[in-house]
Order: sequence, then structure tokens, then C-alpha cells
Amino acid sequence: MPTYNAPVEDMMFLFDKLRNNKKYNEIEKYKEVNSELVKDILDEAAKITQNLILPLAKSGDETPAVLENGVVRTPPGYKEAYQKFIEDGWISLSCDPKYGGQGMPKTVSTFFDEMLSSASLSFKLYSELTIGAYNCLLRHADEEIKNTYLPKMVEGKWSGTMCLTEPVCGTDLGLLKTKAVDQKDGTYKISGQKIFITSGDQDLTENIIHLVLARSTDSPAGTKGISLFLVPKFVLNKDGTVGPRNGVSTGSIENKMGIKGSATCVLNFDDAVGYMIGPKNKGLNSMFTMMNLERIIVGIQGLGISEIAYQNSLTYAKERKQGKAFNSKSNNGADFIIDHVDIRRSLLSMKSMIEGQRALSFWLSQQIEVSLNHSDEKIKQEASDLVSLMTPVVKSLFTDNAMEITSEAMQIHGGYGFTKDQGIEQFYRDNRITPIYEGTNSVQAADLVFRKLINKNGDVIENYLKLVKDEINITDKKAEPFIKQLNYHLDILSKFTDWMKEKIKNSPEDASGACNDYLKVLGLVATGHAWLKVLEVSFKEYDSNKGFYEDKIQTANFFFNRVLPRIESSYITATTGSNYIMNYKFN
Amino acid sequence: MPTYNAPVEDMMFLFDKLRNNKKYNEIEKYKEVNSELVKDILDEAAKITQNLILPLAKSGDETPAVLENGVVRTPPGYKEAYQKFIEDGWISLSCDPKYGGQGMPKTVSTFFDEMLSSASLSFKLYSELTIGAYNCLLRHADEEIKNTYLPKMVEGKWSGTMCLTEPVCGTDLGLLKTKAVDQKDGTYKISGQKIFITSGDQDLTENIIHLVLARSTDSPAGTKGISLFLVPKFVLNKDGTVGPRNGVSTGSIENKMGIKGSATCVLNFDDAVGYMIGPKNKGLNSMFTMMNLERIIVGIQGLGISEIAYQNSLTYAKERKQGKAFNSKSNNGADFIIDHVDIRRSLLSMKSMIEGQRALSFWLSQQIEVSLNHSDEKIKQEASDLVSLMTPVVKSLFTDNAMEITSEAMQIHGGYGFTKDQGIEQFYRDNRITPIYEGTNSVQAADLVFRKLINKNGDVIENYLKLVKDEINITDKKAEPFIKQLNYHLDILSKFTDWMKEKIKNSPEDASGACNDYLKVLGLVATGHAWLKVLEVSFKEYDSNKGFYEDKIQTANFFFNRVLPRIESSYITATTGSNYIMNYKFN
Repeated sequence: MPTYNAPVEDMMFLFDKLRNNKKYNEIEKYKEVNSELVKDILDEAAKITQNLILPLAKSGDETPAVLENGVVRTPPGYKEAYQKFIEDGWISLSCDPKYGGQGMPKTVSTFFDEMLSSASLSFKLYSELTIGAYNCLLRHADEEIKNTYLPKMVEGKWSGTMCLTEPVCGTDLGLLKTKAVDQKDGTYKISGQKIFITSGDQDLTENIIHLVLARSTDSPAGTKGISLFLVPKFVLNKDGTVGPRNGVSTGSIENKMGIKGSATCVLNFDDAVGYMIGPKNKGLNSMFTMMNLERIIVGIQGLGISEIAYQNSLTYAKERKQGKAFNSKSNNGADFIIDHVDIRRSLLSMKSMIEGQRALSFWLSQQIEVSLNHSDEKIKQEASDLVSLMTPVVKSLFTDNAMEITSEAMQIHGGYGFTKDQGIEQFYRDNRITPIYEGTNSVQAADLVFRKLINKNGDVIENYLKLVKDEINITDKKAEPFIKQLNYHLDILSKFTDWMKEKIKNSPEDASGACNDYLKVLGLVATGHAWLKVLEVSFKEYDSNKGFYEDKIQTANFFFNRVLPRIESSYITATTGSNYIMNYKFN
Repeated sequence: MPTYNAPVEDMMFLFDKLRNNKKYNEIEKYKEVNSELVKDILDEAAKITQNLILPLAKSGDETPAVLENGVVRTPPGYKEAYQKFIEDGWISLSCDPKYGGQGMPKTVSTFFDEMLSSASLSFKLYSELTIGAYNCLLRHADEEIKNTYLPKMVEGKWSGTMCLTEPVCGTDLGLLKTKAVDQKDGTYKISGQKIFITSGDQDLTENIIHLVLARSTDSPAGTKGISLFLVPKFVLNKDGTVGPRNGVSTGSIENKMGIKGSATCVLNFDDAVGYMIGPKNKGLNSMFTMMNLERIIVGIQGLGISEIAYQNSLTYAKERKQGKAFNSKSNNGADFIIDHVDIRRSLLSMKSMIEGQRALSFWLSQQIEVSLNHSDEKIKQEASDLVSLMTPVVKSLFTDNAMEITSEAMQIHGGYGFTKDQGIEQFYRDNRITPIYEGTNSVQAADLVFRKLINKNGDVIENYLKLVKDEINITDKKAEPFIKQLNYHLDILSKFTDWMKEKIKNSPEDASGACNDYLKVLGLVATGHAWLKVLEVSFKEYDSNKGFYEDKIQTANFFFNRVLPRIESSYITATTGSNYIMNYKFN
């Protein structure tokens, strides 16, 4: 079975050395979140993920969630683990103290999201959507709803879901058919079928709070007629306790390639009592609060699975002997495969992506906090635009790279990687959902290009490119080769961006045909940017921790030599246009 | 369930229009294999794969092969299908008429290998190794063995296996421990454990002929002490009929990510009677006859799975409505997703790889036939060198691209692609073994760079580059942009080759760190070369079949614009050397 050691050292390095962001530091409420506190949290988080959660990965894969007599049963061990998980308060980590939360910033809670994803994505999903629903309600619900539902959700006694997809619509929610009929008492009766609902039912919590997109009977067709409703599995009694069953039932659960421990449900709503959240016909906007944060977390899921895949590959490479290395240390027999160039290349490729991405996501977590909590509205908005820009990038890049990394992990394990015993192939299967759900990676790329580059507040991508250019202007001599490399690729990104802007206006099909590659190029530059921040500290503080910083420098070096130049081919191919794609006649 | 239509038209195009290779035409025994005959065979092959074999894919995945009371039971339906399969003579397709075969060239049998792989790789594997063992015995066994075993194998009543891997050795066969003790009667007693043995046991045939690598008690350590033995599951009676059970038993079968219908066995040899095949201590050479052909067929497996993944994606894209296209044809509601640029890009990417690879593999099949059957020894040797060069390329490139293609197929299907109902995710899981078995793709890359570029007969890669340069020198004006593109990338390949040659001599670690990328670059140029042969015909014969040839030209155009330029990034990253990889200290 795979092992896992939470990368607390790397996380603390980011928290200690890369936290120094002026605007983030200005956020009043996080001033007391200091290094000691975070270290304590991460140490405890490491314990619970390594000891309690990790074994659930195999159990969920071997004994998937099932639907029995209309009730979803989670895999063996999930119930007990969930109980301990909420008793220790892990769901409340980033929630508002007003509702019982611990009020930790995303800079901390994202580390925990990563650890949980490494240990068991299936288990994680049972609480992840609770946080999503919590965030959505926190922002859009009225006080009464918040006071009624949030404390129980923060406690983990009630969970949350996100009900968007229907048989006819995944990407395109304008086609949505679920109906909401308004009642005299101000509530609605919701009817329709939702599919692919993660944690749509389970046996872990007393109640499930579904956030459902539906169309009010007098609302227009398309996306402008969609409202958001809170639909509890059990309607509440007047005193707020769990009352009778609502009109929501589980039709079936999906038989999937991976994340088998997670119940993916078909939910049938049949005159279910629902409460409208936020303004009528603006449901999509409200849901997007939830979805955008979720998309980033899906990226973090990819990062987490990448980390555990890397760790186990490294261990295996140090134990497995096969073939002679060029500089063989053995007289008879074979060398450890970690002595082979190609295995080392593969491991470093994984590592350089993972650590770069972790640094990038730390930066993004800071931006999220600024966007939510800074006192200056303008600064808030600027950060919010950056977060919007980076959301599809992180979602797609991290999950695509996680496919590459989990695949490399299988290759390193050879035939053993394909068998179930080693648990390596499970990383690959579990991660395979991440480029699909919360909007496929192509949907992310279209979102990036057509909605995020330029918005009503201005030229967001231009501001971002300027920010990167300014920040990598480091005076350290040792950083020069890295800066030169990054600038070279930043220039390609600038050219690509200009090309994109022109095409978005004059030839959107060309832009569309290039958007996946554009996302990749932007993502690689962003990772390079994050690496440069790591390098700046590594050179400056080198003598204080030589082993650690030398490792960082060498890992960055690999990234700049072997990963960043992928930009070249992407740029060349993407800018060939789309006429020949659109004119093609598919028989 | 996925559907499949064998691409007979494309195959017949290759056979009719690209067969015109001087040296291939000089092979006496294939002069009568004409277009009508091949068309008849392919039509029948299409029927059996579409109707009989295709349903076995799902059955094998849902009800995997099992080991019961020491006996492997194949999935439901396999037995009946296998019976029909051998009755119709499909195993004998490419075998020598002397032993009951139909004597078809590889140019034809490879098409059938592709179809079978599309329909059900698991089912295919039960007969594939029989052909492999047949080829090995045909080349290396004495007349008595051949007369005794080959007719039954060609008939399909007995099957074959390839027993190389042991717990301590997969890639590195020098570590092999299985022992062979010679007996007074000239036979050997074989003892040891073999793992990952495809079709090591099954309930389809009367007997199983294991080809086993083992070390004779007086042989040296390492690869120079390995001999090849024929070890039947049942020892034969004097009259050649199946006699008593030999000392071979199935210890267990693997629980795998994919190809679950195929039994992957642990075989225990315990004083099993074996017959030495070929010269003592030269077993690895003999086995390589089998392995090299197998490696090409593994590439074809990837091609076959790619084809069915593409076909089902295309169908889905024409049926699924989601989102508005830029040039929307619908007033209300959504367009078919095939109208979206990015979906079209994805489909064309698949198609352009698949058809280019099919053309390349047709060219390679001709070279194989020349290498085996030409009357001129020198011509034979030249062809043989080209086949050696291209074997690792086809194995790795086709299987890696098949991972990309099956993954794209999942993305096109969205959430449905991740569920078991659609059968799309199975392509992905089944194909995932192909970059691993028969030598991982990294092993192929090392084989290419360190053994195949230059051999005792000379500078093979130089000859190949010259051949490509000569052959793409077409005078058709319309071909010019393609030729220009290919020449540009051929130049990069030439530079990369020079760099490689220098590094192989002076800095093998640099060469090793670059070999995966080198293989990819060579593979893309080879596919471009194949496409140019297709284009030559397409331009010349355009008016005779406009629809078909226009399709070819447009598909090629996509390949040259969007796939071929991947070469750039590979070249840049690979030639950054390996010092920073070798000096890295993995903690």
C-alpha cells in the first residue's frame, strides 16, 4: 500500500518565507496567524491524513460506495473516520468563527486540502462540497438561513452539495430544466433530475444541504432564468432540528473509473421544499462563488495526488534494482533504478512541477484572501481579477500535470504499476476525474480566454504580465540565468497574448482553437514566476539552510531547463489558426 | 457500449496505393496476394471483429479472468468466440502454408492485428503470443520440434506464451534465476518462477506451449548464460497427442487496472520437462525474434485502441448538444459539440495521428517482409536494420499517442467518459499497459539510442534520414508546403542525431537523458514521412476520388500544423544535457 509523508517542511517554507506580501499582510484578521500556530496545525493535519485517512483510499477503491434500498452506504471505515474528522474540527478550519469556524486563511487551509487529496480524494469529497456550500451561503444567503444552517455545516454534522448538472446539460447550464414553483409561504417546490452529484447522498451526516440550480416557472429560458435554491434532505423543524424527509431521493449512483469511494449520485427532486438563495434569476452568479473556489481546489486535488505519486515513486526507485547505471556502483548484479538517468529525469520532472505548483498556489491563496478581506475596495478588486484569471489556469494545469505525473509514476513501477497491489494505478484512476469535473479543462481554457483576460475592470492579463515582469526583476547575480529564461518565455507569452486579443475580437474561432495551448503557456510562466520567488529566498538565505535551498535551486533548474520550454511548441502550433479545423468535413 | 467499424477503406487505400515498393514487389511469394483477395479477407475480418469480438471487451472487463482451483477461467463468451475464431482460421493468417497457415504478408495481417486490438485487446492476447511463439520456433527450433508443435499452434488448438520476467527481473534479464538441469535423454528439467505471463494459463486450448528463458546449471551469470526452452503445459505422448501434465502450475493471476479479460499469470515451474530451442546460452537472441515482432504489434495495439476511441468520440460529438458555436446553426438551445472549434481540434488531432501511424506501420510491414523474404541478402539486411530502428519507435510512439487519444476521448465525453456505462474509460485503462509491457517506453528509447542508431552494419539512422530525404523529394507543386515543413523538422532531427552520436560516445548520460525525446522526434518525422507518401497519391489521384483524397489532405494538414511542431520543445529540452540531473541529490 502506498505511504505518505505530508510535506510539512515545504509548506512551512512557503508560509515562513513567501508570506511577505504587502497587501496580504494588511489583512487585519490574519495578523495573529503566526508560524508556530500554523506549524502545530500542519503537524496535526499530517498525523490525521497519514494515519486515519490514507487507509481509506484502498478501502474505498475495493469496496466502493453503494446504493442499498435507496440509501448510500459509504465504504468500510468512512463513518468512523468522518466522526473523528469532524470531532477534531477539521471541516471548520477555514470557516468564520462566527459560525464556529477556526478562521484560518486559505494560505493554511489549502495545505490541508492538498494533504487530504494525497491521502484519499474520495474521502475528501464528502466534506469538500460542504465548505463549498458554506462559502456560497455565507456570501449569498440571508441572516436567518445562515444562522440556521451554517453552524451545523461548519461542525460537519450536516454536509453540502452542488446540484448543477442534468442529463441534457453539463457545460451548458442554459439548457437546465429543473423547475421551481413558488408557494404562498415564500418557499418553492423543486422538481427535476440532477446527475453527477458528488456526495449527493451518504450515511455520514444527519442532513444534507443541497444547493440546487432551478428555473422558476415565470423565469426566462437560458442562463438568465436560473435561480439558486437551498434544498435540505430533511426539512427542519421549527426549532431547527432535523425533521421529516424532503422530496429528494437518490435514483442511482455511478459506477466509475476512479474515486470509487465517493458516491456520485443521480438525485430526483420531486416537489422538494426549497428556499431561494440570493436574487431571483441570478442563481448562476451565486453558484459561481462556490464553483470558482471549487475549481481551485480541484487543482489542489491534482497537486495532492501528484505529491503522493511522487513520494512512492521515489521510494520504489531507491529499492528496486534493475540494470547497470553508466556509473555503476555494483560489481555484480544491478543498480538501484534511481541511478539511471531516465528515472532521475522522470522523478525530477514530477518534483519540479509539484513544488513550483505548490508555490504558485500559495501565492494564489494570498490573492484570494486579499480579494475577500482587504479593507481597500480597489485592492480587493485587483486581487479578485487576478484570482479570476488564475482559477482556470490552476484547475487545468495542475490536473493535467497530475495525469502526467501519475502516469510517470506507473512507468517507474513498470508492470507492478499496472497491478492493483501496489496502489499506484489508483492515483492515476482517481486523478482522472480532475480534468473533467467542475468544468472540463477545455471549458476552463475557453473561460480564461473569452472571459478572464480582459473584463469590465480592465486588461487583467496585462496587469498580470506587468506584475510578473516587476517581481522577477531581482538583482541577485545567481538568479540571472533563471530570469533570462523566464523573460524569454514571458516574451512568447506576451506575443501570444497580443495574438489572442486580436483574434478574440476579429476571429474568435482562431482564439478558441488556441485556448488550451494558451492556458498551458500562461500556466508554465506562472509556475516559473512562483519558482523565481522561491529562488530569490533560496539564494538570499542559502547559508542558513544549505541542504534545503540547494535542493530548491536544483529542482528549479530542472523546471527551467526541461519543463518551461514546452511553451515553444504550444505557441507555434496554437497560432496556426483554425480555418483548416473549421473547414474540415467530418464524415 | 462502444461501436466499431473496421476502417477497411483506409486499409485498402494503403494496400492499393502505397504497396508500390520496388523491393517488396520483388518478393516472389506474395505476388499472388492481390487487391481482391485482401479486400475479401478484410471484409471478413471486419465482420468477425465487429460482431463476435467487440462484445467480449465489456464482458472481460466486467467478469475478469479468474483462477479457480488452479485453473484459469476466461470471461464469459471467450471460449465460444475462440472456437469460432480458430475454426475460421484467423490464427493462421500470416503463418507458413507448410504448417497449415494462409501465408498472408504482414501488410495484411497487421491490419487484422489492428482490428482485433480495437475490438478487444484482452481477447486478442490469447492468440497473439501464439503467433509470437510460432515465429520464434519457426526461426530457431529444429525440424522435429517444428513438425510436432507448429501445426497445432497454427490451427489454434495449442497456444503459446513468452516467459521472461521474474520477480527480480523485468527489464534486466541478466538477473534471471530460473534453472535448467540437463537430463540424460537430452531434455531439461526447468525450475523457477515467472511472473506477468500473458495467457500463462486459460481454458481455451488443449495445450499451452511456454517458451521459457532459463539458466542451465553450467552456464555463466548475466545475459550470456541464458538459454531458451520449450515447456509444454502437457507433455506430449509419443504419437504427438497431449499426454500427462508437466510441472507447470499457475500460482496466481494479477488483479489489474485494465485488460482484465486477459489472464496475467504467475507460473511456477517445478522440474518441468523442457526442450532447448536454438543454441545453448543464446536464448536471449532467439527470444528477441519474438520480442521484436511483439513490440511492433504492441504499437499496433495502441493504434487499434486509438481508432475505436476516435470513432466513438466522433459519434458522440455528432449526437451531444452543448453550448453555442460561434457560427451557431441553432436558434434556441445548443449546437452539436462537433461544431465547437476545440472539439474539432481534438478529433482532428486523434485522426491525424491515427491515419499517419497506420500509413507508417504499413510501410514498416513492407520492410519486415523484405527483411524476412527478399532473395538478396544485402537488401534483406538493409530492411532488417530499418525494422530494428523503427521497432522501438513504433512501440513507444503509437502507445504514448494512444494514451493521449484515449484521454482526449474521455474529455470529449465529459463526465460520461469517466463512468463505466459508456465504455470509453475502458479504452484508457486497457491501453495503459501498452507503454509498459514488452519493455517500457523508456527501455525502447534507450534501445533505439544505444543499439539501433548505429550497428555493426553501419550508420542505420543516416541511411534512414537519407531515405526520407530522397523519398519526400516530390515534384508536385501542391506538396511543397508539406515538404518544406517536413524538411524543416528533418533538419532538427539531423542536428539532434549529430548531437546524440557525439554524446553516445563522449557523454552517454546526456544521451540517456535525451533518449525519450529523441524517440519522439524521430517518430514524428517518420509519421510525417508516411503522411507525405499518402499526400503524394492524394494529389496525383485527386480527381479519381475527390472526397477521400480531400479528407486525406486536410487531415495531413492538421498533422503538419499541430502535431509535427511538438518536435521543437522536445529538441530544446533534451539537449540541455544531464549534469544537473545526475548531480541532484535525492533525499
